Order: sequence, then structure tokens, then C-alpha cells
Amino acid sequence: MKTYFNNYSDTMEINVLRLDHRLKRDARITTHVCLTSRAFGASKIYLSGEEDEKLMKNVKDLVARWGGNFQIEYKKNYVNLIEEWQAGGGEVIHLTMYGSQVQDIIDEIKESPKNKLIIVGGSRVPTKVYKKSDYNVSITKQPHSEVSSLAIFQHMLLDGAEFDLKFDDAVFEVVPTAEGKKVNIKENGKNSIKK
Amino acid sequence: MKTYFNNYSDTMEINVLRLDHRLKRDARITTHVCLTSRAFGASKIYLSGEEDEKLMKNVKDLVARWGGNFQIEYKKNYVNLIEEWQAGGGEVIHLTMYGSQVQDIIDEIKESPKNKLIIVGGSRVPTKVYKKSDYNVSITKQPHSEVSSLAIFQHMLLDGAEFDLKFDDAVFEVVPTAEGKKVNIKENGKNSIKK
Repeated sequence: MKTYFNNYSDTMEINVLRLDHRLKRDARITTHVCLTSRAFGASKIYLSGEEDEKLMKNVKDLVARWGGNFQIEYKKNYVNLIEEWQAGGGEVIHLTMYGSQVQDIIDEIKESPKNKLIIVGGSRVPTKVYKKSDYNVSITKQPHSEVSSLAIFQHMLLDGAEFDLKFDDAVFEVVPTAEGKKVNIKENGKNSIKK
Repeated sequence: MKTYFNNYSDTMEINVLRLDHRLKRDARITTHVCLTSRAFGASKIYLSGEEDEKLMKNVKDLVARWGGNFQIEYKKNYVNLIEEWQAGGGEVIHLTMYGSQVQDIIDEIKESPKNKLIIVGGSRVPTKVYKKSDYNVSITKQPHSEVSSLAIFQHMLLDGAEFDLKFDDAVFEVVPTAEGKKVNIKENGKNSIKK
């Protein structure tokens, strides 16, 4: 199994760029985009659009409880970010229902060891994003969600390795059970189980 | 490749139950849950919690434009639905970050030809849902989103067959392109391409 650079490994860094965040309308969707990025192996998300300090604090608080070193940063000028990413040798994948079909293109993307910047859009994505991206990729040709598109793309990119990711220094850790809830809580050097 | 019963096939019917919808707070997330269900092969979604006629109309309008026969229904008493589903020979899979890990259990679930009712929760899922479900399944042990959990579960259940689903009588049909947008519009028996 390959390992991934989300503070735990050394092969490929995955970052996400979320375009056109709107404070009220998008707060929950963008939060889900952040958490999905993290759970599926990204090490950082950049938010563009309206700056949302409350959302960023919520995500940081969650990371502190659930572990790992996931970063979140506001980026007003995302075009600069795209250009810097590519200048640094990374490639850019824009998820859009209009792009090449993921099942046709994923092997090519996986074979390249370049760091990946995955872009998920807002309501209207400017043409320049399509043009600057190395890949425009669709996750089915149907309308659904930037959250599900991102999850499926990262899952396919990692070949399911997200299920084995470790998140260091977590306070909360789920203990999988077939029925009910079980969480291991590590505080002040002690473990306790909450059901 | 297996085919799936989403009005196009004859093997396994997949329905989704979304618990505890709240009118204002959940409108967009629940919409994304509906569209993800449809795009990844479910034939119907049941919404529980607060009744939301506007959301249901929006989803129906989208189905009319994008094709297929996806159904949406409000169900106040979801416990009845679970019991009827099981009495009719179907099985129930509740997606929760506390459950058995999907990578350990998906083969068992796939091998069973029973119809599947997939439950995605709201903020607090009652213990009875855990107890009545045939499977409680986690998509990673990390917090992320009911939208991403549903997409990954359906993708793994269908082995990627969602990429080949056909949606009958669509007005809009995406023509995948590596750069830019291309949509085939079928109206009044005529086709036109919009870019």
C-alpha cells in the first residue's frame, strides 16, 4: 500500500482549494468540504470567496480534538495559488460535472507522483479555472455535490488508503463497533471509553 | 458488470432514508444527500424530520431535467419504514462514524442480493436506529459528512457501476470534455449543444 503525505508519509501531498465560499449560504457545505478533505487524506485546504473566521475556527477546533495536522487558510487570490502550485511542480485537478470522466482519467493522475491541488467550485466557476487546471474531472455526469465529488475523487486517488490513515495526538478516537457508539477519550495522559 | 434497479435494471433496489431534516439549517445538505443518492444509483429517498415541500419540489424539478425516475417522499414515521423494509425481505444499513468499518464489511453486504435501505442521520440518531439496522457502517472513523459517506458507500456497493448508469428522458445531458462545458439539450424532439 502506498502512503500519503498528510503529515504521516512522504509520497504525495494533497491540498484542496474551495472556490467562492459565501458566508451564510455555504457555511455547512464548506465545513463538510473541509472535513471530507481531511478524512480522505488532504493535508491542507485553502478557502476562497468570503472570509469566514468562525468556520475556520470550528474546523481548527475539530482538528485539535480528532488529531492530525490538517491546515486551513484563507486565500483571497486563488489564481496566484494555482500558478504557484504549478510553478512548484504540482498539478491541479478541477472537479466539475462537465469534465473528463474520472474512471477514464484516474489511472493517469495516480501514476504521476506530482503533488495534487484539487479544486472544488462554487455556484459559477470562471472559465480561467477550467483553462488553468491540468485536469477537469467529472464524478458521474449528473449533478450532485462538491462534497461527494471530493470524497470519491480522493478515495479513488488513494485507492482506499484513507481507511488506514493515522491522526496523531487525537483526544477522540472511535472504536468501531457493529452496534452502538464507542469512543476512546485521551486526556491528561489517561484513556477513558465513552459509550 | 452487474446492473442495478434504479428503473433501469433488475437486481437490487437501493433506497435512502434521511433522518431528522430541519427546514432552514439542513436545506442544502439534504438536497446534496438527495442528489448524491440519485447519481450513485438509488431509486428513491425518504425524508424524515421536518417536512420540506420546497426542497422536494426542487429535487423533482431537477429529476425532470436530468432524467431517470428517482422518487422522493416524506415519511414522518421512519420506524415503520424500517420495519416494513425488513418485513419485505430488505436489509437496512445505517451509516455512522461509530459503526463497523466499511472496508471490512462491504463484501458481505454486496454478496447479499437483498434490497438495501441506507440510512443517513441527522445531528443525533436515536439508539433504536442502531439497534434496528442490520448493519451500522462507518466510512472512515473520522467526522466528515453524510454526503461523502453516502457517496462512498454507494460507490463501493455498486463497484463503480454508477459511472455507467443511464437516466432516461433527460433534457440535459453532459458531454464530457477535458476543457470547458458542453451540454446536450433535448427539447421538443430536437437536440442542441450548449457550451
